[in-house]
Amino acid sequence: MSKTDFSHHREKAEGISTADILMVHGLVVTMDHQFRIFEDGALAIDGGKIVAVGVTEDVKERYTGRRIIDARRKLIMPGLINAHTHAPMNIFRGFADDLSLNEWLYDYIFPLESAFVNPQNVELGTRLAIAEMIRSGTTTFNDMYYYSDVMANVVDDYGIRAILTHALLDKPVHNGSTVKESLQFAEQLISDWRTHPRIDISVSVHAPYSASPALYQAAKSLADRYGAQLHTHLSETQWEFDLISEKYGHTPTGHLHNLGVLDNNMVAAHAIYLTAEDMDLLAKHDVGIAHNPQCNMKLSNGTAPIPELLKRGVRVGIGTDGVASNNDLDLFDEIRSSALAHKLVTGDPTVMDARTVLETVTIGGAHLLRMDDRIGSLEAGKQADVIMMDLSRPHAWPHYDVYSLLVYSLRGSDVEMVMVDGRILMEGGRLTGIDVEGLYDAVQSVRRDVSHWRDSRGLGRS
Amino acid sequence: MSKTDFSHHREKAEGISTADILMVHGLVVTMDHQFRIFEDGALAIDGGKIVAVGVTEDVKERYTGRRIIDARRKLIMPGLINAHTHAPMNIFRGFADDLSLNEWLYDYIFPLESAFVNPQNVELGTRLAIAEMIRSGTTTFNDMYYYSDVMANVVDDYGIRAILTHALLDKPVHNGSTVKESLQFAEQLISDWRTHPRIDISVSVHAPYSASPALYQAAKSLADRYGAQLHTHLSETQWEFDLISEKYGHTPTGHLHNLGVLDNNMVAAHAIYLTAEDMDLLAKHDVGIAHNPQCNMKLSNGTAPIPELLKRGVRVGIGTDGVASNNDLDLFDEIRSSALAHKLVTGDPTVMDARTVLETVTIGGAHLLRMDDRIGSLEAGKQADVIMMDLSRPHAWPHYDVYSLLVYSLRGSDVEMVMVDGRILMEGGRLTGIDVEGLYDAVQSVRRDVSHWRDSRGLGRS
Repeated sequence: MSKTDFSHHREKAEGISTADILMVHGLVVTMDHQFRIFEDGALAIDGGKIVAVGVTEDVKERYTGRRIIDARRKLIMPGLINAHTHAPMNIFRGFADDLSLNEWLYDYIFPLESAFVNPQNVELGTRLAIAEMIRSGTTTFNDMYYYSDVMANVVDDYGIRAILTHALLDKPVHNGSTVKESLQFAEQLISDWRTHPRIDISVSVHAPYSASPALYQAAKSLADRYGAQLHTHLSETQWEFDLISEKYGHTPTGHLHNLGVLDNNMVAAHAIYLTAEDMDLLAKHDVGIAHNPQCNMKLSNGTAPIPELLKRGVRVGIGTDGVASNNDLDLFDEIRSSALAHKLVTGDPTVMDARTVLETVTIGGAHLLRMDDRIGSLEAGKQADVIMMDLSRPHAWPHYDVYSLLVYSLRGSDVEMVMVDGRILMEGGRLTGIDVEGLYDAVQSVRRDVSHWRDSRGLGRS
Repeated sequence: MSKTDFSHHREKAEGISTADILMVHGLVVTMDHQFRIFEDGALAIDGGKIVAVGVTEDVKERYTGRRIIDARRKLIMPGLINAHTHAPMNIFRGFADDLSLNEWLYDYIFPLESAFVNPQNVELGTRLAIAEMIRSGTTTFNDMYYYSDVMANVVDDYGIRAILTHALLDKPVHNGSTVKESLQFAEQLISDWRTHPRIDISVSVHAPYSASPALYQAAKSLADRYGAQLHTHLSETQWEFDLISEKYGHTPTGHLHNLGVLDNNMVAAHAIYLTAEDMDLLAKHDVGIAHNPQCNMKLSNGTAPIPELLKRGVRVGIGTDGVASNNDLDLFDEIRSSALAHKLVTGDPTVMDARTVLETVTIGGAHLLRMDDRIGSLEAGKQADVIMMDLSRPHAWPHYDVYSLLVYSLRGSDVEMVMVDGRILMEGGRLTGIDVEGLYDAVQSVRRDVSHWRDSRGLGRS
């Protein structure tokens, strides 16, 4: 090596930092404020955070990487955010389909949960759900279930990001035999986990038909005390709308307004049956909505008026709900269904255009969960929750618009690399930290028990 | 080896035939008349046909295979049937989305087709479409486009099964500058290809708004002369319904009835705007319907009254339509959307249950296309159009009902092996007879030309 070469090398190195990971030559979709897209883009990641994003040539002038990932024919984007799910229910996938709502809930799901929800099955279901979520590009999920201390340990172990909670009902189930004990458990969860870098704890109340005014107010007070989110189901069915209207003289939304719990820390799932006044109330109090289009269609509950809510400036994210009513956790599937359902219901093919729909699962979901300072877009300073998708498969060719490609043509199975806080959880389509075979055996065992229980009750389909 | 062992071996061998392929220990979903499912099932394939299907132990008593495929943790089912598509349009994937119907058709799609539909691009689009279809488990497609002689050569080459046709309109496009020449070309196609083992030729008329009564009648006469199907679009939009009602004094369906062309060889795509009388007419004349739920939702055209049609005994298949309005050819995606859309629109979650929906893409599609003597189910004597799906991925666990699993949880990307007439077209997720890299380069080249043309016309989205 000549002296000149050496000095050149030193000169260049002086201006160049070494990041943990440098991804180069990918199609980078940032979802930032300007919706920047870099056709030949790069991302530098260091210490779990994004430190640079831009044109490959520019980023390479400032960064090299301890590891360099060639992203040619790949698409790089923020990890997806599931705004509403019940992860442990994954062990119940496809248990009861194509039934009327009441039959589904009261003859199948509630008895099933009574029989099989315990810490061991919650742990298994959560593991299974996280494996499925990572495989299809989800890096954050907002959950509502029971035994959330068990769930938190799994989330800690598997490396995904989550907001967990203990669901409160008038008739307490699990982790407490009285409402008071349940509230204590909910509070304990917050103290135990709130400093975890990837786990947030919310307070949650099941729904206006299953929780009293007093419980809503106690939960709201607990949430406010800790600066936590208040997660609830709201106005999911015509039945609920009618029941609450009759019982309290207000719509479900009006009822919660009267209780003084509509606020900017509330995340309300479903929100299908809304009057114009309800929508104004939600906007005025800055309540966020978790939209679940596939579950709502599958149970014939309708379609939330998302275009109307977006017009009013309401924050909207998108969720899968649990797999007992979906039956998967694939958010690519969910956003495509969202676009299609709204175009069908409104009769206007221009509503919920591809970019708008993609926002609900990225930066919009982050806004909904008040995490937009940390995640939801590819920007320097944010946590490195990043996914990389394979564009080398025929269904990805050609593309004339990146958002159309993502919403209408790509799918969860095109995700081949996933990282959270810069830690790679899947690579080359393989989960790096999950014993999939062990999971499979455990799931088969639960499946046998559940099937036996179902058959003994005469609930089998054929 | 003792004498006893040897005689035992000979004795056994005498009753055992050797098939080309023996698939064993799979979850076999037959879609036959009794909807038989074999949990530990086997399939023997010889000379391009299925020769045995049943419990592995039983099939092994009668067959061994020159090749034996272990299908543990795999699902084996009939190849899927796409009842309505425009394969060459694959080069236009995602060209124009989220637009009003008229803007989409008249400002984007028609000018685009005028500029870019030629034999070379039809060949490329068809190759791309077939690659995508095979990858997601489609083994037969019913098409409507131009330059179908070119398409037939590609179908012959790639090994898939298809019904091809030359679309007839009052204003002839491609393959003929007059209606007479177009009809001659349509007839020539039949003579040239009708003896091909995997290619059928239908006669097709574009739609009631684009074809005169005389053209419908000429096409019907041509179809009858050759015992061919008559493929058409019917009552896809409110605009068409109003226009035809005003022009002819009948609904589109009533109009075709008046022309005497409603018959049991007609395959009508869409059929969204139907009166009760229209539905009765379709049932009475045994017209078959190709349902395209995703395209119909995406363009806000509505949802065909499929549950009503099925109640009347109408034959129903399911199609993707072209990717310029879908934007993919994944039939698993399509059947899930079908189930969800009908539950949403009817308000009844029991309609279009998983098995019914799966019928539309297998044996129902075969009935629609009058090919149920050859394909659509796994039965001895039928052609070996078979797909095998991977059940070893977390989103497939657990399952409590096979039809729920197939419709609500599995997806095209789970297909890992595809055969048509016993010839393997994909294995281990890799296409066996298609130069995918060569295709990619050609598609990129067309994409550049189309993008340039679009930009020069100021049609870009951003």
